Amino acid sequence: IQFVCVGGSPNRMRAFAQFMHKELGLAGDGDDLADICAGTDRYAMYRAGPVLSISHGMGIPSISIMLHELIKLLHHAKCRDVTIIRIGTSGGLGIEAGSVVITDTAVDSSFQPRFEQVVLDDVVVRSTELDKDLVEELLACSKEITDFPTLVGHTLCTYDFYEGQGRLDGALCSFSREKKLEYLKRAYDAGVRNIEMESTAFAALCGLCGLKGESSCTALA
Amino acid sequence: IQFVCVGGSPNRMRAFAQFMHKELGLAGDGDDLADICAGTDRYAMYRAGPVLSISHGMGIPSISIMLHELIKLLHHAKCRDVTIIRIGTSGGLGIEAGSVVITDTAVDSSFQPRFEQVVLDDVVVRSTELDKDLVEELLACSKEITDFPTLVGHTLCTYDFYEGQGRLDGALCSFSREKKLEYLKRAYDAGVRNIEMESTAFAALCGLCGLKGESSCTALA
Repeated sequence: IQFVCVGGSPNRMRAFAQFMHKELGLAGDGDDLADICAGTDRYAMYRAGPVLSISHGMGIPSISIMLHELIKLLHHAKCRDVTIIRIGTSGGLGIEAGSVVITDTAVDSSFQPRFEQVVLDDVVVRSTELDKDLVEELLACSKEITDFPTLVGHTLCTYDFYEGQGRLDGALCSFSREKKLEYLKRAYDAGVRNIEMESTAFAALCGLCGLKGESSCTALA
Repeated sequence: IQFVCVGGSPNRMRAFAQFMHKELGLAGDGDDLADICAGTDRYAMYRAGPVLSISHGMGIPSISIMLHELIKLLHHAKCRDVTIIRIGTSGGLGIEAGSVVITDTAVDSSFQPRFEQVVLDDVVVRSTELDKDLVEELLACSKEITDFPTLVGHTLCTYDFYEGQGRLDGALCSFSREKKLEYLKRAYDAGVRNIEMESTAFAALCGLCGLKGESSCTALA
């Protein structure tokens, strides 16, 4: 295994593994890849040659479980120099829908490059820096693909899809449209170009465990 | 719809809907229930007569997305007096494996009955009280079932399965076995009888939106 690609949805990660199987010209039927983790509902995992494709569900707690177990798996399988890339979806901020945002830094709801991990009842602050060389490498790759815009920016990671991301259409909403726009403008001014729900924990855990990690998400509307 | 039952795994919630279909003696093939939310990977939803059975994935962010959308759905469908019960799994604390813990109060990692919701960049503290009558009703039901022990207790809700719950076997661990046991003992002394990853957000959101909610989980080892 040289690459691990992760994203929220099990169906999407199966489709990605099938796509990689074909792109890499691997032998056998790419449409018939088995879910290596079929016995559990935690996540789905597919292998296409040197690439693992794994789903992580939605949100920091969900991706953390998968990452802990993946990192142990790679360790016991004696895999070295593995690159891990999150290829999820996200909400775009002031950019064209369909753009790909390559994350240089994952930031929390205060736009700080940090992840607060609760360890028992202590709060430990961890760095959310991602691999700078990998950012440059991915950006270079994007130059060869002209189908969609690609840019580098900060990624805002929230614990909540509705109230945490300024949505007005959740089951409850305590802020005005003006307050939402003011928050999103501050986010943009701080360098945020997309919003999702996993990047800070992903960056922190990969960084601490020596995995070369990057998050590179398609931005929706 | 009179009851909504939610749990982490899509497969388990399909099996639960099939079970309810048979228990309620509904017409038609209970083995052939359609996933109402088949178009999305966010969650699976099945209906058996007056019961909805929905998966919520793992962790607070994941269950929050489902609850926002469920609450809107029930509102637009003009459902009234709906009771919602989380029927997940959990880790037991000082109790027999296989016990069912009916949550009286969901508590955070400091054993406080509160849920800190980030709204834009503000932190709002919400109550995690659950419906007391429903606790009594469920406990009364359990008296008729002697297959497994049932008890009422506090439920500890964490953001993390490994470092947040005192597991020593994650990809990284910065505390000793002694510190783990000391934390779990303090939790037990504070009234905690099981640990999971959704109950505080579940209690807060159901409470605010007027859903009669309860969490009642099987405790593993």
